[in-house]
Amino acid sequence: MAADTNTQIVLRERPTGALAESHFELRQGPVPSPGEGQLLVRSVLLSLDAANRAWMQGPTYKDAVNAGDVMHGGALGEVLESRAPGFRPGELVFGELGWQQYAAVDARAVQRCSAHRPLSHQLSVLGIAGKTAYHGLVHVAGIAAGETLVVSAAAGSVGSLVGQIGKLRGARVVGVAGGAEKCAWVVDELGFDACIDYKGEDVSAALARHCPGGIDVYFDNVGGPVLQAALFAMKLHGRIACCGAVSMYDGGPITGPVGIPGLLVVKRIRMEGFIVMDFADRDAEAERELAAWTASGQLRVVEDVIDGLENAPRGLIGLLHGENRGKRMIRVGPDPD
Amino acid sequence: MAADTNTQIVLRERPTGALAESHFELRQGPVPSPGEGQLLVRSVLLSLDAANRAWMQGPTYKDAVNAGDVMHGGALGEVLESRAPGFRPGELVFGELGWQQYAAVDARAVQRCSAHRPLSHQLSVLGIAGKTAYHGLVHVAGIAAGETLVVSAAAGSVGSLVGQIGKLRGARVVGVAGGAEKCAWVVDELGFDACIDYKGEDVSAALARHCPGGIDVYFDNVGGPVLQAALFAMKLHGRIACCGAVSMYDGGPITGPVGIPGLLVVKRIRMEGFIVMDFADRDAEAERELAAWTASGQLRVVEDVIDGLENAPRGLIGLLHGENRGKRMIRVGPDPD
Repeated sequence: MAADTNTQIVLRERPTGALAESHFELRQGPVPSPGEGQLLVRSVLLSLDAANRAWMQGPTYKDAVNAGDVMHGGALGEVLESRAPGFRPGELVFGELGWQQYAAVDARAVQRCSAHRPLSHQLSVLGIAGKTAYHGLVHVAGIAAGETLVVSAAAGSVGSLVGQIGKLRGARVVGVAGGAEKCAWVVDELGFDACIDYKGEDVSAALARHCPGGIDVYFDNVGGPVLQAALFAMKLHGRIACCGAVSMYDGGPITGPVGIPGLLVVKRIRMEGFIVMDFADRDAEAERELAAWTASGQLRVVEDVIDGLENAPRGLIGLLHGENRGKRMIRVGPDPD
Repeated sequence: MAADTNTQIVLRERPTGALAESHFELRQGPVPSPGEGQLLVRSVLLSLDAANRAWMQGPTYKDAVNAGDVMHGGALGEVLESRAPGFRPGELVFGELGWQQYAAVDARAVQRCSAHRPLSHQLSVLGIAGKTAYHGLVHVAGIAAGETLVVSAAAGSVGSLVGQIGKLRGARVVGVAGGAEKCAWVVDELGFDACIDYKGEDVSAALARHCPGGIDVYFDNVGGPVLQAALFAMKLHGRIACCGAVSMYDGGPITGPVGIPGLLVVKRIRMEGFIVMDFADRDAEAERELAAWTASGQLRVVEDVIDGLENAPRGLIGLLHGENRGKRMIRVGPDPD
């Protein structure tokens, strides 16, 4: 049963520089009534992603979040009421529920969750993060055994999986992350071969040291200066999978990397942007591999779950500053019985 | 028979800004003697290419040209003397002969010319220019019928062929070139659907007008501001074949394009640098198609032949300023009998 009120977090104004809690506002709205073809869904776990910040800059692969909107966000929830054929109360779905306790959404716009437990895995290793890591590394970059892989935001939701999948595929893996302690964790706990602290080291010099033969694949989550350094360290015929540009979302640099297109030509580099949805036809393959690696313990799933919808703004801001390890999410409500 | 002296053009100093005639020096050297495994070759036609300027900036896919070096350049010439098995005087070869009348070169480093005449075609449509256009458009960009193709340096050696091959493959083709007269020529004589004058028009506005549905393939010969404008005009899943960066060779901008990697991600763009040599295993296919289109008159081969080695510096400088139409080359000596 739904409560009487619906706690919502609204984007009060679109940030022009760094995102702050003052850009958000908590309000109590009514619990919506689902229309024909819709579902009333109670949010259980809300995904926090660097891309949330990019959505505030304007239209991307989805509509922009505008001032006054309930903040957008993918979440996993329980169907409370169905006005769509084929859906029943009690089922679990994933979709664009937004930063709120209750959402009325089109049934066609949600995906059914699988029977896999814990539920949180469906937002991390089996969710967008895991599939992004898998498709980007396997299908976009085409990683091969024996190659040297560099991945930025190495302690993050996607990066932590990219590096581990790279190791499972036989690559040498060098991460880039912020802070010596985090880098040590990436090496010791996630099994990367090395990790470069971009806050404390000269990234170009460290890449030269850790990748003396050059980089075959750079999985880029950050753009900006780390991409710049990686470009100069690429091998001939290297591939760059462009997954995100978190360094540039929150008031970071807006200039592009020097050496484009010159370095791409001289080194015959392929640079390719991708979005996980483009690989939906290969999701089953990704889920199968990721679930098997997780079950066998070969893949360590790192989750960072924060309790309470009211903590979502702070949680996202912290994520943009790199304070999370692994997949950050908000527990909005209890798991269904 | 070789003459007694060998006219050579030497790079007196490496340019830091725009290339000038004063960077070169003409001198008379001795006619070299071929060593074991070498050929003495008399230069007939010397290729001038924007890449010649890039070589002066430092090592690229080949060694840099340094002060005091005979200027590097690919040329087609006649074997006068052979100290290598399998080569005989009178044969025609293409190789790195440099800006000089006579060169002693390793036989393993040259390619035999085909029987195709006129000889100049072997530097244009059947040479590096033609193969670059073909491989870049067909194998790197994967152009398809019905797509919108934009090509920069549209009146140049590569661009003039890219656009025509695009038309033959069923694409809508929009060129970018410098000057209204040149643009009119590209449309009227080469059959492009439109051509944007980057010197006289706002390229972004013109791209929006000529490519209202966006660009599927951008074949980039120039980098810089035109690449910048094209990036913003790309369609989802567009491809950019990075062939060169002539706007940046001769004291042009060194900053990279804004929107990388963000736009690549949002639009899922693939950007790929290439060098014609990487596709040598498919050269036979390219030559067959290019020769057939040329023979049938479907492909118009435009050549810009300047007489006299002493005019090579001026010819290259003019090419960097876009004064050529089609493939520019220097006639160093007469065709063999």
